[in-house]
Amino acid sequence: MPKKILGIMGEGESASPEIIEQAFKLGQLAAADGWVVLTGGRNCGVMHAALEGAKAGGGQTLAILPSTDHSSMSPAADIRIVTALSSARNHVNVLTSDVVVACGTGPGTSSEICLAIKEKKPVILLGCSKTGQAFFQEIGGPLVQIASTAQAAYDLVVRLSAVIE
Amino acid sequence: MPKKILGIMGEGESASPEIIEQAFKLGQLAAADGWVVLTGGRNCGVMHAALEGAKAGGGQTLAILPSTDHSSMSPAADIRIVTALSSARNHVNVLTSDVVVACGTGPGTSSEICLAIKEKKPVILLGCSKTGQAFFQEIGGPLVQIASTAQAAYDLVVRLSAVIE
Amino acid sequence: MPKKILGIMGEGESASPEIIEQAFKLGQLAAADGWVVLTGGRNCGVMHAALEGAKAGGGQTLAILPSTDHSSMSPAADIRIVTALSSARNHVNVLTSDVVVACGTGPGTSSEICLAIKEKKPVILLGCSKTGQAFFQEIGGPLVQIASTAQAAYDLVVRLSAVIE
Amino acid sequence: MPKKILGIMGEGESASPEIIEQAFKLGQLAAADGWVVLTGGRNCGVMHAALEGAKAGGGQTLAILPSTDHSSMSPAADIRIVTALSSARNHVNVLTSDVVVACGTGPGTSSEICLAIKEKKPVILLGCSKTGQAFFQEIGGPLVQIASTAQAAYDLVVRLSAVIE
Repeated sequence: MPKKILGIMGEGESASPEIIEQAFKLGQLAAADGWVVLTGGRNCGVMHAALEGAKAGGGQTLAILPSTDHSSMSPAADIRIVTALSSARNHVNVLTSDVVVACGTGPGTSSEICLAIKEKKPVILLGCSKTGQAFFQEIGGPLVQIASTAQAAYDLVVRLSAVIE
Repeated sequence: MPKKILGIMGEGESASPEIIEQAFKLGQLAAADGWVVLTGGRNCGVMHAALEGAKAGGGQTLAILPSTDHSSMSPAADIRIVTALSSARNHVNVLTSDVVVACGTGPGTSSEICLAIKEKKPVILLGCSKTGQAFFQEIGGPLVQIASTAQAAYDLVVRLSAVIE
Repeated sequence: MPKKILGIMGEGESASPEIIEQAFKLGQLAAADGWVVLTGGRNCGVMHAALEGAKAGGGQTLAILPSTDHSSMSPAADIRIVTALSSARNHVNVLTSDVVVACGTGPGTSSEICLAIKEKKPVILLGCSKTGQAFFQEIGGPLVQIASTAQAAYDLVVRLSAVIE
Repeated sequence: MPKKILGIMGEGESASPEIIEQAFKLGQLAAADGWVVLTGGRNCGVMHAALEGAKAGGGQTLAILPSTDHSSMSPAADIRIVTALSSARNHVNVLTSDVVVACGTGPGTSSEICLAIKEKKPVILLGCSKTGQAFFQEIGGPLVQIASTAQAAYDLVVRLSAVIE
């Protein structure tokens, strides 16, 4: 049986220290509970922090990398999927995740929220602006849930994944 | 010199009659003025209407198709790019367009708005909800402009493309 | 009705002067006869020569580009499809072409021959080694035809496209 | 440190019983020795057999799936990467593998051999025709090695991966 995969999406260089800290905690919580943690895999921001958190939680990590450039790959990934698809890999991120948590609302992350809604995947918004919350709930309805801490986000992951099974 | 390409993005089956009419008009205006009109190329909604409008305007049309299924391809496309990439082709739509007009805010279209912002392409929102307008201006700043008619959208296309050159 | 598209595949920097000359002639012949000529679109080798030939033949040209790097794009392309998919765009090249002519047997070009066979597209080998001819006919059977000049290749294009219609 | 990934490429429905048996053995040998075994992930032929062998060998398995269709996914995959890229995912298969073993010479598999050569990845041909061996050695030189049994192929994997490190 395939493993459950939690996609933690978020920005790289432009991620804030607060959201990076939340991403680390979320990765840690999910990994400790048996989830494989997936991110966009670059060596910065939410992508790297969530993978590091998952390693700290004793779990397995999966990076869906946009390019073949080794220097930009997070060393916290156990398995590196090298796509060379640039941002077209965002669709792969979403399809591969059972549940998506979006950390912040950078444009790449927001594209993943939209694609998740299109693919009928549950999405949890963490550290999302009020404007973003309103918009994504407008287009996603009950697929979109809101959390304000890593723990609250993980509680929603557990609840939503129970519904999927 | 490569031709100027206007990407007109929008939903398929779920597009409203009003937005379909605007997409037709916009395709017609742009094509009459020398733009190649690009859409996601399926045989319904905004994708098909914008291509039909462009043909009515005497211009050339380009479909970036998500699948190899011939029955779902708009017959109004002069050139069919068959990607078989599913929604990963949304990134190709955006990169190939010099300017993007998003008709409505379905999830696929919204993903293209986000990707356009990420790629620093100008995006014009036509028939976008107030919530959507607020969100996309929050994440895109001056890259994002708002129009309420096909003519207003096309006026913005002209103004923005002058800035690009 | 969509236009007929001839894909002329071949190497970039490593293409020989002889095959570059054949690619130019083939692009010219096909374009003069109404085909849109498609290549991988980079500014060198077979990709650039076939597009230049097609412009000399008075036709329309289409580049399916692997990256967003403007300096590597052939200026002979009328329409630039910017994929940012790296060599994953080879599959798009093949699916978008009605008939494929492969010039030489570099590894990228050979991958396109294989993908064309998989997709049941007719492929003509121009400037292919005896070993390559034997292999591609072994895996492709009657889908694979052999030509030794641009004119012979184009004659086969005409014959094979008549069968498709 | 990321795990070593062995890509075992081969056909689905059209694979012969002999090559399916070899793929199973190779997956088993590699997995028992600590490799993550990657395949195209469909529920048939070499793709499924190599994953089943790897599970029998006590290892971890990775499927790079061409579509979202659950019924076509091998149940022997621990981690499912859902690309929806059709055969464009062949490039992802190759880039993600440290070493590639190609079982047979179907057209999809042959495209992966070509892409591996282009990306300078070592490729081992197992169950390849004499014609195929000659061609791939012609275009790939020392990157391409030949084996006639699963054990011989795995011995080459070990030798080649030592060179990479």
